[in-house]
Amino acid sequence: MSISKRSNHDPRSLQRVAGNGLIDRRALLGRGVAFAGAAATGAGASLASAAAEPLPMDPWSLRIGSPIPAYEAPSKYEKHVVRTLSNPNHEPRTSNARTPHHLLNGTITPNGLHFVLSRAGIPDIDPRKHRLVVHGLVKQPKIFTLEALARYPMESRIYFVECGGNSGPLYNKDPVQANVQAIHGLVSCAEWTGVRVSTLLEETSIDPKAKWFLAEGADAPSMNRSIPIAKALDDAMIALYQNGERINPSQGYPMRLLLPGYEGNMNIKWLHRIKLIESPVMAMNETMSYTLRIAGQKSWQFYFPQEVKSFITYPSPGLALEGPGFYEISGLAYSGNGRIAKVMVSADGGKSWAQAVLQDPVLSKALTRFRLAWQWDGQPVVLQSRAWDEAGNVQPTRAELFAQRGEPRVNVPVTAFPMGHINVIQSWAVDSKGEARNVYA
Amino acid sequence: MSISKRSNHDPRSLQRVAGNGLIDRRALLGRGVAFAGAAATGAGASLASAAAEPLPMDPWSLRIGSPIPAYEAPSKYEKHVVRTLSNPNHEPRTSNARTPHHLLNGTITPNGLHFVLSRAGIPDIDPRKHRLVVHGLVKQPKIFTLEALARYPMESRIYFVECGGNSGPLYNKDPVQANVQAIHGLVSCAEWTGVRVSTLLEETSIDPKAKWFLAEGADAPSMNRSIPIAKALDDAMIALYQNGERINPSQGYPMRLLLPGYEGNMNIKWLHRIKLIESPVMAMNETMSYTLRIAGQKSWQFYFPQEVKSFITYPSPGLALEGPGFYEISGLAYSGNGRIAKVMVSADGGKSWAQAVLQDPVLSKALTRFRLAWQWDGQPVVLQSRAWDEAGNVQPTRAELFAQRGEPRVNVPVTAFPMGHINVIQSWAVDSKGEARNVYA
Repeated sequence: MSISKRSNHDPRSLQRVAGNGLIDRRALLGRGVAFAGAAATGAGASLASAAAEPLPMDPWSLRIGSPIPAYEAPSKYEKHVVRTLSNPNHEPRTSNARTPHHLLNGTITPNGLHFVLSRAGIPDIDPRKHRLVVHGLVKQPKIFTLEALARYPMESRIYFVECGGNSGPLYNKDPVQANVQAIHGLVSCAEWTGVRVSTLLEETSIDPKAKWFLAEGADAPSMNRSIPIAKALDDAMIALYQNGERINPSQGYPMRLLLPGYEGNMNIKWLHRIKLIESPVMAMNETMSYTLRIAGQKSWQFYFPQEVKSFITYPSPGLALEGPGFYEISGLAYSGNGRIAKVMVSADGGKSWAQAVLQDPVLSKALTRFRLAWQWDGQPVVLQSRAWDEAGNVQPTRAELFAQRGEPRVNVPVTAFPMGHINVIQSWAVDSKGEARNVYA
Repeated sequence: MSISKRSNHDPRSLQRVAGNGLIDRRALLGRGVAFAGAAATGAGASLASAAAEPLPMDPWSLRIGSPIPAYEAPSKYEKHVVRTLSNPNHEPRTSNARTPHHLLNGTITPNGLHFVLSRAGIPDIDPRKHRLVVHGLVKQPKIFTLEALARYPMESRIYFVECGGNSGPLYNKDPVQANVQAIHGLVSCAEWTGVRVSTLLEETSIDPKAKWFLAEGADAPSMNRSIPIAKALDDAMIALYQNGERINPSQGYPMRLLLPGYEGNMNIKWLHRIKLIESPVMAMNETMSYTLRIAGQKSWQFYFPQEVKSFITYPSPGLALEGPGFYEISGLAYSGNGRIAKVMVSADGGKSWAQAVLQDPVLSKALTRFRLAWQWDGQPVVLQSRAWDEAGNVQPTRAELFAQRGEPRVNVPVTAFPMGHINVIQSWAVDSKGEARNVYA
């Protein structure tokens, strides 16, 4: 095929790789492609406009700016880029705060916007008085101050953390009309720095009878979970830093457990106790909150990794397209089982698929940004993404997952958690006005 | 060699890899090493203490915590982790804000603490009114709104940005007594997301006569630099996002030029103009501020990449060691010419060297964290680090660099910029009290 120059470009000649305008990104690189797509659509929706000199002077170019603060916050024009709060009046129940992925880009979640789920608010911990105890089936129980912990060998890893209930609104009987933040906002990603749990267990030595450990937080509900000792000896970490600075109060300041790829609630925040045990303690979170209902009146317990998932962040509900023309479809993919191997994107509800570009470096158990060029002709379409991980897992369709779990039969508020570990394909229907909505396709 | 168990461990048997206690990190992994080092030192300075049950209840475990904010800030106990400001009274001169690397860990700089250098404060730009013009030696001059720019193909890259004057205090005649933040705080690292400059130049087409471009900011001084067109066609980017969220006001909100690896001031903030030109405009920054004095009354102009550098962040001035025992030496390395290949650490002022562990992924033109285990015997030592990059460059000694530049002959305030592009080996002398100070070794 021939790729013409900008001046006489016909977008119909672009290398279409799937239905409804998905374009091979390689066709865009260095070949003078018209992003406006005016020739194809007749809409003249050029992204850029012709420049005329002289350039106007803007008022902010004519005066001295404001002082530099010691600790900086985003622009006042970004005041809408905040977490949504499920419990703004601080009633005595679980609170969550969701990351606005539809307004972010890249893979790192800034610390101010990392998602939170907390059962009793944020404890006000004095780091000089906080202690971490490692005891139970160890040879030498130990108490670690924050100062002592900070002297051990550290490592830094970029990992996502995801609430087991994230994407739960997709288990509604009817498609909930909500945006990316409401449906998928309980996942975030940061560079975590801390000490491996295995390093501390070298200090205490392990009694061979220990097969599990209980991790417990210093928050009022003493949030706790039972975790196989194998995870402690693998990649579990006591995180002290988040994107370079000490972890935020809502993330467990001054220290949290980090279990890469495992469901969020197990990553115990405000960590003050690790007890090595023979078998799980079967506390409330094991027996009630974090069992997974499956079809046939059965439940799965101790169901740890967050499964391979992806969702498109742009376009998505609330971010209307401005008419036919060039867009870049963009989203996030991740797996608790390792690296993302591939993301496919469809613009025709799954009839045809094109492979998205993955932003490198693609890291294990980290958010991966995917992108795909798209020439929208202004007609209604259904956008979907589907991810594969290096362990060979594939993101399921609704039919595939719900054959196993049971079909959703009720509608619940978007803030409820009707079902955990929902990783089905997300479908966004884009109408002819460019507005997106959640559909089941 | 044999590695003994914790209970009868003799640290003298650790695999020493260089003088004054540097330990091969592989010797620590999975072999029950005593971090306390009490046997070697007789000081009994155990990092952890023995645990006794029952555990005391802390006051924050007994009450409901505080509400979750929509946008979160670090703990009140971290109020000292801020940028230092060179011009806190906002006088009409250049201001800078330095990153507190001695209090951070990992490789990402949180957005609140990214370094700043600004000539007239922070302009208050309305993103809906801001425009980027690409003109000059192009076939079709174009104006881009922020909204239009955000529709082009994007990419996300983790890059450091460093002021050309960073580490300048090391050019003082006598060693300035200052900490990491004061000496090396004008470098930071973030995940930047935006549009390649080359993508915009595909829209405008390039007149073959264009060999350079002028980039200009919308700040009051119209900060501008001349940059070879080759960089625009390579990895230059218009950054819109910083660690996931829109770039901060001091970083150029709503858009900045990012020239990976090039000296900081060329990464024009509040970018509103790119003009393609035949030869550099030789404005003030080319003719005065950013020429590099070298020995023999000569200067180098258009000296772009930040050279390979490293410095130890821990131990460092202000962070006293708490007696003999185990420590992890940690620091940052980077090069404007690509990836870091190797960092060597010395604890005896350069007589012997051990290879530090580089935190993966080691990314091109990004901060790289290095770490090395160290058993301090309580005697005075001189710590140094030295970095190599994949292009084969090596961080110079003071003697090597200053043979070329001319020996420093005066002492100037730590906030001054006596010389640009200083990347000599940093030496920290640690005395018997564990206190570190800047020395020339």
